[in-house]
Amino acid sequence: MKQRLAILGSTGSIGVQTLDIVRENPDRFEARILTANRNWEKLAQQAREFDADTVVIADKQPLRRRCAKHSRDTDTKVYAGEEAVAQVAAGGGTDVVVNALVGYAGLAPTVAAIEAGKKLALANKESLVVGGACVMPLARKRKAPVIPIDSEHSAIFQCLVGERAPVRRLIVTCSGGAFRDFRAEELANVTVEQALRHPQWDMGAKITIDSSTLVNKGFEVIEAHWLFGTPAERISVLLHPQSIIHSMVEFEDGAIKAQLGTPDMRLPISFALLYPDRANRPGERFNFLNHPQLTFAEVDRAKYPALDIAYDCLRRGGTAACTMNGANEVAVAAFLARKCAWLDIVRAIRYALERAAFVPSPTLADYAEANAEARALAAEFLQLKN
Amino acid sequence: MKQRLAILGSTGSIGVQTLDIVRENPDRFEARILTANRNWEKLAQQAREFDADTVVIADKQPLRRRCAKHSRDTDTKVYAGEEAVAQVAAGGGTDVVVNALVGYAGLAPTVAAIEAGKKLALANKESLVVGGACVMPLARKRKAPVIPIDSEHSAIFQCLVGERAPVRRLIVTCSGGAFRDFRAEELANVTVEQALRHPQWDMGAKITIDSSTLVNKGFEVIEAHWLFGTPAERISVLLHPQSIIHSMVEFEDGAIKAQLGTPDMRLPISFALLYPDRANRPGERFNFLNHPQLTFAEVDRAKYPALDIAYDCLRRGGTAACTMNGANEVAVAAFLARKCAWLDIVRAIRYALERAAFVPSPTLADYAEANAEARALAAEFLQLKN
Repeated sequence: MKQRLAILGSTGSIGVQTLDIVRENPDRFEARILTANRNWEKLAQQAREFDADTVVIADKQPLRRRCAKHSRDTDTKVYAGEEAVAQVAAGGGTDVVVNALVGYAGLAPTVAAIEAGKKLALANKESLVVGGACVMPLARKRKAPVIPIDSEHSAIFQCLVGERAPVRRLIVTCSGGAFRDFRAEELANVTVEQALRHPQWDMGAKITIDSSTLVNKGFEVIEAHWLFGTPAERISVLLHPQSIIHSMVEFEDGAIKAQLGTPDMRLPISFALLYPDRANRPGERFNFLNHPQLTFAEVDRAKYPALDIAYDCLRRGGTAACTMNGANEVAVAAFLARKCAWLDIVRAIRYALERAAFVPSPTLADYAEANAEARALAAEFLQLKN
Repeated sequence: MKQRLAILGSTGSIGVQTLDIVRENPDRFEARILTANRNWEKLAQQAREFDADTVVIADKQPLRRRCAKHSRDTDTKVYAGEEAVAQVAAGGGTDVVVNALVGYAGLAPTVAAIEAGKKLALANKESLVVGGACVMPLARKRKAPVIPIDSEHSAIFQCLVGERAPVRRLIVTCSGGAFRDFRAEELANVTVEQALRHPQWDMGAKITIDSSTLVNKGFEVIEAHWLFGTPAERISVLLHPQSIIHSMVEFEDGAIKAQLGTPDMRLPISFALLYPDRANRPGERFNFLNHPQLTFAEVDRAKYPALDIAYDCLRRGGTAACTMNGANEVAVAAFLARKCAWLDIVRAIRYALERAAFVPSPTLADYAEANAEARALAAEFLQLKN
């Protein structure tokens, strides 16, 4: 029987590659529900190609009309608004929700999908960075499988398959981002164009900037904690510039397992959709002779303070990581809009964390408040500078 | 409940390290039966330390008397002869047979242990190189688990745990042995001392010579075929001089899983004994910062013809690999005894393979004959030269 998918964020990088996997496996998957933020033209085109039941434009009502007009001679239902995204995530007619949304906006659909007992293929790491303490217990209660799509977490998940021995350490590998080879003093004047040049992965703009600051790696540590129940002190980050080893698990006997291969997000997407099976995927095979050298080094924690900030947020718990994320979202948007410097991203995070209210055992409503407060604080900090 | 072990070859490198694991886990294992080839003093000392029920000296009756004398004030029973080794492998009072014998001599005890339905922790690769076509169907019939101890096969086994997807390729890594950095024309005059200097692993003399010729790697390809059911064309050998990645599996979606860590045989031994659990082993943890570079290259097939010979034997099936092994055993012993040159090892293998009778569907008796014939042919070749 075919798995029926809801793909939240279908026009983004992960969404498009998820549809590649659907296209590769027409006998296994149907794309029933597609959602996009603003890109109604691409959404309408996807809806036609995959004969979707329902599409949602998250951002604006007027775009709904354009999209609906474009879909006039089809049966596709067209909705608009962020609430509609969460509603279709929970709605009937699908088995798997692929959450490929960017940022805090992914949390509510994650909760909705889990509440409805769907299998969740999770690319939106902020769902767990912000709300892991609520999301994971809920997933266990609803018996909703949460399969990560992030390449690092997919690697760890693959290494843990069939293992029942305790984990001694998770080793999250890190390419080092766009500024890996920059000296600390060169970081003051880096441009958006420079920050968007990720050395290994072709991804969306937000996550590429997060990679350049290592905010993304910090979030991955937090995400790993929630997914695998591993405490912060047993999660380490290892610089691995080639991005061939996607991450590793060390077991208590000292054995280390790694998952590796070409940096191609379709691989973890395909794994998340098919687990416990795997697809016979087309495409180039990884050849070690083309990658004759894998190297490892320590991350420079002074050059990349975001990593330690994320570890601190994980140790503090409560709304700390939510505050970090909210401030980061505002600052990254400001940086991409050329309204602040790259170094201001971490400064804005610090500013927000120093001033924001801290709720030790937050509800989902508390996260919403903490997110709003963090965004306001970051905006305040960045306006002060402008 | 404790697992009761029979350790065949307890005074060799793998046997001694198996007893290290027993010592580390006194609540999990008892060493009930110990066997040695000739080293009666070490055997008697092990028997006392581990309070063994039974010891066997494989080689000679007179040694039995000395060993028995040495064990006079204990309850340990003392036997002698190769048949006694196979008998105790099949005998009552044990749950697991660790076969750490060297060479063709390991086959009969492997068959005996499997016939008796024991769990077999297998370090003797010749059991499968020679007799895989008989041994593995028998193991399935008797529901006797066969867990490899070879580090490469343990790595592959670990990567396959919990996976049900088809395997696209097994990647057996290869350190390159003692002559990795020698040019082909330098190999004519290499000495025993040079051949015994393995760059990464501390092992017995026979296997260290087999590593220097890559006969060992060829045998590992054959062993992998029998253990995992993978055809020859889906098993590749990759030069990896650091011996950190112990081997890998590529699945049909393109994902590669690797098992890695410090080259320490106690790790695969511990895994084989405890699977599906793992022990919390003491000892140094692997640190990537001390191994900042892993490299990969193609094996020079012209410099190491033994690898292609082994692939040919695997493809031919029947008694071919048995003939290769028998000739190799004689030639390696001759080389260690300084009675032939290092290059003569592969020459003796070729000589035997060109002349030996070929039985396409051998019985165990046919293997015994093929082994004897190969040994005679190799001796003939080497005497011709002397």
